[in-house]
Order: sequence, then structure tokens, then C-alpha cells
Amino acid sequence: MPEIITGLKLSEGIGFGSIFISTEADIEISEREIEAAEIDAEISSYKDSIQQAHIQLRKLRENVGEHLDEDSAAIFDAHIMMLDDPGFNEHIINHINNLNNAEQAIQLAGEVYITKFESLDSEYMKARALDVKDICMRLIANVQGVQLTDLSRVDEPVVVVAEELTPSASAQLDSKYVRGIITVKGGITSHSAIIARSLNIPAVSGAGDILSKVNHGDDIILDGFTGDIVLAPTEIEMAAYSEKKKAQEQREEKLKDYIGKETKTLDGINISLYANIKGPEDVKDVSDNDAEGIGLYRTEFLYMNRMNLPSEEEQYKAYKAVLSSQGDKPVIIRTLDIGGDKELSYLNLPKESNPFLGERSIRFLLKNEEIFKTQLRALVRASEHGNLKVMFPMVTTIDEFNRAKALLVEEKERYETENSKTLNDIAAGIMVETPSAAMISDQLAKHVDFFSIGSNDLIQYTMAADRLNEQVSDLYQPYHPSVLGLIKKVIDSGRNNDKWVGICGEMACDHKSIALLTGFGIDELSVSPGNILGIREYISNIKKTDMEQLSEQVLTCDSAEDVLYLIEEHLNLT
Amino acid sequence: MPEIITGLKLSEGIGFGSIFISTEADIEISEREIEAAEIDAEISSYKDSIQQAHIQLRKLRENVGEHLDEDSAAIFDAHIMMLDDPGFNEHIINHINNLNNAEQAIQLAGEVYITKFESLDSEYMKARALDVKDICMRLIANVQGVQLTDLSRVDEPVVVVAEELTPSASAQLDSKYVRGIITVKGGITSHSAIIARSLNIPAVSGAGDILSKVNHGDDIILDGFTGDIVLAPTEIEMAAYSEKKKAQEQREEKLKDYIGKETKTLDGINISLYANIKGPEDVKDVSDNDAEGIGLYRTEFLYMNRMNLPSEEEQYKAYKAVLSSQGDKPVIIRTLDIGGDKELSYLNLPKESNPFLGERSIRFLLKNEEIFKTQLRALVRASEHGNLKVMFPMVTTIDEFNRAKALLVEEKERYETENSKTLNDIAAGIMVETPSAAMISDQLAKHVDFFSIGSNDLIQYTMAADRLNEQVSDLYQPYHPSVLGLIKKVIDSGRNNDKWVGICGEMACDHKSIALLTGFGIDELSVSPGNILGIREYISNIKKTDMEQLSEQVLTCDSAEDVLYLIEEHLNLT
Repeated sequence: MPEIITGLKLSEGIGFGSIFISTEADIEISEREIEAAEIDAEISSYKDSIQQAHIQLRKLRENVGEHLDEDSAAIFDAHIMMLDDPGFNEHIINHINNLNNAEQAIQLAGEVYITKFESLDSEYMKARALDVKDICMRLIANVQGVQLTDLSRVDEPVVVVAEELTPSASAQLDSKYVRGIITVKGGITSHSAIIARSLNIPAVSGAGDILSKVNHGDDIILDGFTGDIVLAPTEIEMAAYSEKKKAQEQREEKLKDYIGKETKTLDGINISLYANIKGPEDVKDVSDNDAEGIGLYRTEFLYMNRMNLPSEEEQYKAYKAVLSSQGDKPVIIRTLDIGGDKELSYLNLPKESNPFLGERSIRFLLKNEEIFKTQLRALVRASEHGNLKVMFPMVTTIDEFNRAKALLVEEKERYETENSKTLNDIAAGIMVETPSAAMISDQLAKHVDFFSIGSNDLIQYTMAADRLNEQVSDLYQPYHPSVLGLIKKVIDSGRNNDKWVGICGEMACDHKSIALLTGFGIDELSVSPGNILGIREYISNIKKTDMEQLSEQVLTCDSAEDVLYLIEEHLNLT
Repeated sequence: MPEIITGLKLSEGIGFGSIFISTEADIEISEREIEAAEIDAEISSYKDSIQQAHIQLRKLRENVGEHLDEDSAAIFDAHIMMLDDPGFNEHIINHINNLNNAEQAIQLAGEVYITKFESLDSEYMKARALDVKDICMRLIANVQGVQLTDLSRVDEPVVVVAEELTPSASAQLDSKYVRGIITVKGGITSHSAIIARSLNIPAVSGAGDILSKVNHGDDIILDGFTGDIVLAPTEIEMAAYSEKKKAQEQREEKLKDYIGKETKTLDGINISLYANIKGPEDVKDVSDNDAEGIGLYRTEFLYMNRMNLPSEEEQYKAYKAVLSSQGDKPVIIRTLDIGGDKELSYLNLPKESNPFLGERSIRFLLKNEEIFKTQLRALVRASEHGNLKVMFPMVTTIDEFNRAKALLVEEKERYETENSKTLNDIAAGIMVETPSAAMISDQLAKHVDFFSIGSNDLIQYTMAADRLNEQVSDLYQPYHPSVLGLIKKVIDSGRNNDKWVGICGEMACDHKSIALLTGFGIDELSVSPGNILGIREYISNIKKTDMEQLSEQVLTCDSAEDVLYLIEEHLNLT
């Protein structure tokens, strides 16, 4: 039996091929004390390394720009900026003047930055530390005249295996040849994970001591659905995984039949099937998967991974790009949703004892009106280019919605006056994420244009269980009758007041909960683009009337287990 | 106009009198390098200071033991233990051997402990740092032959003004003479605040630069209801505050008419009026105020301010003391409610990102069965001495209640078998604090014997607003229709299933919410003993039928403001 290592799933899919070991860390630094007479030569050697790096990075940026989105290419812009950083240069030259050779000087200067960045409690700064490591390695390789592993030169099918992929290595990945990525380190939000998903390359991390067990050129299989890595697979395994991969591809191919079709139950009830996106880079995915609109544009990504707030113009361009891409289809843009687990380090907000119960989302925006108004102005301007609906997150009281809506109207009227034109109305709705909003949904429905249930947060607050805390993960129960009762209440309130109700948490993706939500009478589901066609297929094969019976029973259940048992029993019967 | 400083209310009441400035910090330490020949003399001087301190502390302990509860007297036990601590003694003698004089040696040793305790993120350890400061000051005063301010010698009416009261100074306060306490530092949970409340002495802290503005002997007024401190009051102010104080006293006197009466509305509906306590030390207060039982015994205080878990025997004694004091009256004991904002440092539990949404209360107990079972055994044994009902906090699912109840039954049966006797049934109920429990209260009511709504937490989770976070305090809304809707649901579920429903958060104390709860059909209120008679008076003057109309209207209100307006309007009409 071949050995199987089970790692962390970073990107779905099955990949196999021969191993390409990417070992940037191979470069050995020779630390040497130099003579005073050598200083000039070392400085000049260092300066040459910078010049070379400029050329290399620009070339890499062009190469990857062709097959990657702008975000990934931007990694190289960050590196080019670092090359020109006067503080960094001065540090290195000082070290050389203190009689360190160029290689060591680069390393010493880099370490200062890396230590500083790593010590900060911020994902953004930790990613910057990796950038500095990456750039220092490149400079040292240049001083030594050594060629760094260049993944962009890979020209045959391989599975890349590495301790950790540097940002520049990740950005060189070419989905034409790279069939999978296996790393020892790197979480679900690492650069390489993000890029792997955007390129649809299967990826698994947490591969333990894999580097001591495999050689360049060995065969390997990885399963991004399960996290399994099969070392030295036999022909039997190869055949089995090949079969699994083929079945997966066939299923994906078959789902394409649903492109261009309506999302409608067997008994003729239409459900709108929209996509969740994080920016213009996702619109291709949206159209490839034939979403009927955008149900959740998470604008916080515009604000993240940077050192300052995005300008109105920058936001306008992003919103406009998304709106224009969708024609008449609805585009629901959610205003900035930070706080909780999402920090913007450059705002230097005070630490809270319970950030999930703190000043997050709309609470933050209403207390920071300038930030809010800048976003609303960009939205108002962009509304000319498509079918915009604005959604406010984490609303708890009607007053919050009314204040947010008033600011939107104020900015719209200002724009209309300044530009002597009249814009179409902009619908304004809310995310229902707090038990409070669900409990008063009947009153809220008289004010808002629509509801979108954010099931992840709603579950967390209803069950009083932090959705990121392992210790209480058993209490995070999407199928608990209390959660379902609140969801039902919101859907009923919407129907009684002629307002549509959608859902955009993970519950919108799961077939069992879709069955239940259909029974409750949900109007819209918003999911990641890759899930659209599978859900359209599922809905096309169920009847709303069947599900209605089910949805009345679940609310009187004692527990989530009882609810699930009931659903499973019901779905097998129908 | 005299100057008014508004500070932090620590203990209610109005006090005035001449100022007694308590300045422990007056002692100046003379740091001096000694000759080797002096070492023995300094060590002997230090040892004498220890002997003297022993005598002083024992005497103080006896004095304060007479007019204070055991808890306050126990402060001196902690100090006496510190005197005998071998590590502390060794530290000091080492410093003297290194040629520091005794005073400096005591200070240097103390600083090590103080720094260590203060650096720990625990209220308990911070209080220990204050103990060390206190004991070091006493030892240094003894070495110098100086007399520390002895508040127990005060024999005329005064208002004590101090930077901060040390634990030993606080323990010397005599309510016969001390009419008020004003401090610059010290929060609501400081030693001096706790003692002031237990002695019914008005107290205010946060008095800013008061020490630079007043002199020993000056007149001063403090108002523990508002936090106001009036410096150099004129006769007019003195008269006005005197009037206010007299009115307060008269009102308290008048409320005594309600001792021995039933708590019944004008239209004849009985509401049980129980007391919240934190231990046997509160039972006198319970009987003085004629509570009809104990609605919430917060057992966590047995576990706090110590270095290890209380034994079964220790718990048994405390529970027995409370149960025996109440005869047939019900005593509802809540099992250990830690986590959230209440830490037990000796358990070394991992830090959580959102402790209010973490492993607290029953969640902790169910994962730490030995701790839970020890408490349950103590409860079972104590149940022989009174009318015990056990209450589980923070229940979110029926499964949690059933598991907790099963452990209680298991411990009861084991005790019965081991002792060949049959105990009375022990009723088991829950606190309703999560939106989940409220939403499934109809199902829960089929399992539990009673509900007690914990309004503070229920509000916090429903509104998703940390009740201790200033930034979101505007969202902590007891009168929000969403909160009231959940409370109503619980009360209805209780009535439909013949289970009584009480409430034990701050909402049980407020007249406006009592009116509303009466309309909803609440069966029991549990409040701090000092509030019992005022509430009995209030309830005796309202009609449930009047309040029923009100309670139907509030649920359809848009906001907490609308609810309050409606209640106020309604109460003025009736």
C-alpha cells in the first residue's frame, strides 16, 4: 500500500503527475568579513543585484500578467517598490560599510524587516514579511550569480512540491502545466492558496515531512477534495484517481447543460440564483457559470491588503466594472463589512474584548461617516452603469437602516444636483445577521427593499457560539430549530410585505438546506460562482410543495440532529 | 457656586461631614547602603517589624471582624500568610546581606512581587499586588517606628478622602463614623467599593485632583446616587442634600411597611419576589428585606479570589448554610457560571477571541465533568437542608440540559445508594440567556422544571452587542422589541407547559420593565435584596389587566424608544 498523507484542502480538484520540487531555500549564504578596500566592490555588486532584480521582476510581471489576474501580477509591483525603498537600501549599505559582505548585508537588513513585520498581529504584515524574504532571496541569488527556480519555465505536466511557495513563485504558476500544488506550510488564505484557487489548480498544504520522502520526478497524486496526498501511487491508485477525476470532469461537463436555463422547481417556482464576488476579477467566473446576477459583492476586499483607504475614484472604477459587466442583471453591493474577524490595520482601531459583538460593519460606518460617504458617492456614480442595489451589513435596529439609507439618498441627491441629472432609484436592503433583525423583520420589511440572510453570523449569534472558535464548534448548528425559526420568520415577513428574501451564507450552498429554504419560500440564493450550475440542477429536480410539508415539521424538532434526520428521511422518500 | 466633581458611583447613598484625608503614601523610604557590620542589626530590625505586623494585623482582624463580614476580615488572613511566606522573607534577607538597609530591602523584594502580579492579566492577581504594597508599607512603617493611619481609630463623623484605599485601610472602616468614601482611583469591583457597599457607606471614585483642592477638616458632600462630590458646600447645598438624604431615609422607613406582606397586584395576581445572592454572607440581607426565597445564588463567587477549586465539603457547607437559613422557601442555586468576563486564573484556560461567544458556563461544566460533579455532589448533599432547585446557566440546546440533568440525577442516586436514604426530588431549570433557548423554549419547557430569563446576556446576544463594550453601549437595549419578543415567547412557552418563568437580570429591577413583565405574565422576579421592598410596593399598586394591553402593543413597535414612550404614556394614564 502506498503511503497517504492527509493535509489541508486549499483548492479543489484531483491532480497527478511527476513531482517538481521547488526549493528556493537551496541558496547558501556565505557570511564573510570584508576588508575596508573591498567595500566599494561589494556595494557595486549589491547595486548590480538590484538592477538585475528590476529586470527579472518586470519580465515576470509581464509573463504572469498574461495568464493571471491583475491582483496576482500586483505582487510583483510590491516587490519592485521594495527594491526602491530608500530605508531598505540604506540599511544594506550601512551593513557593507560595517564590513559585511553584500550577501550578509542583504540578509541582515532583511531580517530586521521580517522580524518587525512578523511580530505585528496582522495577516497583512505577515504577508509583507514573506515579500521581504522573497526579495532578499532574489537579491542574494543575483549577487551569487545563481538562477532562482523559475516555475514559469515549467513546460511539462508536473505537481509542484515545496516547503512554502513564495509570492513570486506562486505568481509564476501556469495552469497549463501545473497539475497540483503540495506545500508543507501555508493556510487557506496564503498567497499560493488564493492563486491556486483562482487558477483552478488542486492544492493541499500541511504535507508534513513530504520533502524527505519524495524525489524530483516521482509520481504523486493529490486530491484537493479530501486533502489526501498519495505517495508513490501504484497503477491501481492511478487508475482509481484517474476515474474519479474523469467522473468529476464529466459531471462538470454535464452541468454545462444548465447554462442558459432558468432556475425553477419541478412545480414551476422560480428562485433567483446569484453569485458572491469579491471584485471585478470574479466577473468572468460569474458569466462562465451563468449566474443570474450578483447577490453579494464583498467590497471589503477593496480595503484590504493595502496601507490606506481606497479613494472614491478607485472604488467607482471597481463598482462600474462589475455593474457594466452585468447589463440589466441585478448587482447587490454590500457596503464595507469590517470588524469582527476582519481588520484594517491602517485604521488602528482599538482592540475589543469580543470583536464579533463589537463595533463592526454598519456600526463602524455610521460612526465613521466620511469613510461611509466616500463609498456611497462611488456607488451612486457607478449606479449609472447597471442595475445597482445597495446592501447594509449587520443591521440590528431600524434606526441604523434609516440612518444609512438617509446618507445614501443624500449622496444621490447631491450627485444629481451637481450633475443636473436624475438617476434611477437605488434599492436599499439589509443583511439579516443578528437575532434582533430577524425578530423585528416584520417591522423592518416596511422600510427596506429586500432582505438577504447572512446565515453564518445569524447562526453564531443565535447559538452564542463564535464561528471561528474550535472549542464551541459543536454548537455552531445551521440546522438548529432556533436558527431555522428565525430564518422562517424573516422569509414570512418578506412575503407578508412584498419584499424579496435571499440568503448568502454557506447555507445557500448545501442541498439539504436548499430543500428546506425552498419549502420556507426563499426567493434568492447567492453562492460562489462555481456552485451555481450544481444548485440549478438540484432545484430543477425538487418540488416546492414537497418541501413545504418538511419545513413546517422542522420547527418543532428538539435538535439539529432531529431536523437533519427528518430532511434526509424526506429527501429519500421523494 | 461651590465646585462639583462628578465621579464614578461605587456605593449608593448621600454622605456629608468633615474630610479625613487618608494618606498611607506619606511614608518616605530612606535608601541607604549599610556596612557589613550592620547586617545583623538590620536583619533583626526587619524581624521585629514582622513580629509587630503580626500583632497589628491580628488586632485589626479582631476589630473589623466585629462590624464586618468574614470576607472582609479575611483580607487580614491573606496579609498574615504573606508575612510568613518563606520566599518573601528570603528575598528581603538576601537584599540586606547585599548591604541594603531593611527599609530598602523590603521595598526591593516587594517590587518584584508587585511587578509580577501586575503583569498578569487577571483581576485576582492585580488585587494581590495591592496586598503586597499594603504589607510592605506596614513593614517599612514598623522599621521606621511610624504609626500608619488607623481608620479604626476614627471616632467622629467623617468623609474619608484618599488616593486609593488599601485593603487593610478599607477593612478598618467603621460605618458608625465613616459617612462617605471618596477616592481618586478604584473601580466598581475594588476592595474598597465592595466593602463600602457591604457596610452601606456611600462611595464615589474617579475624583480627579481632589487631593490638591481639599484639606483635612473641610466640609464635603458626596452623592453615591449620582456620583457628584460637592467641594466646600454652602449652607444652601448642605440643607438641600440633607433634605435629599432625609427623604431617602423616610422612603426606606416607609418601605418597611411591606415586610411580611404578599407581593400581589391590585387585581390579585401573585408574583414571587426572590433575592439574588453571592453566598451565605448575604442571607441576613435576604431576611432583613423579607425576600420570599432565593432566586439566584451565584456560586461562582465560591470559586473566585482563591488559588484552587473549592472542595466538595467547602461547597456543601456554603450551600447548606444558605438552604438552612431559608426553611421551606425555595433556594435556586445556579451551577458555576464562569468564562465570558469571569475568569478563574488558576484553571489556566486558553484565551478566546470572543469569550462571550466561547466555552463558558454550562459549556465549560459539560467539558469538565469532574468540576461539575463535585459541585453537583455538594448540592445533592445540601438538598437535605432545605428547598433546593438547581439552575443551569447559558443553555443553548436541549441536549445540554439533558446531559446536565443526567449528571445531577446520577449524583443524587449515588448519594442515595451510598447512604441508604431517599431524598426529595430536586427541581432542575435553566437560565434563558441565548436567543436559541428562547426560540426553542416551547420544546425546552417539556424537559425543564422552570425558566429564569437572564436578561443581561439575552440582550447582549440578541443585539449582538457586548454588554461591557462602551463602543456599542447604544445597542444594548433592554426595551428593544426583538428582546421583548423573545422574553414574551419564553413566558408563553412556560404557561403553555405549566412551568413557571422568572427573570433575574437587571430588567427585574426596573419599574417600567416590571410593568411590562407583569403584563406578559411573569411568575417570578429575582433581584438584589435591597430592591425587594420597593418592588413589592410597586407591584401592589399596578393591575395586571392594565399591563396586558400594553404588552401586546410593544411587540409591534419599531424601536426601544417607541416602546419606552408607550410604557411611559401608559403608566401616566393608569
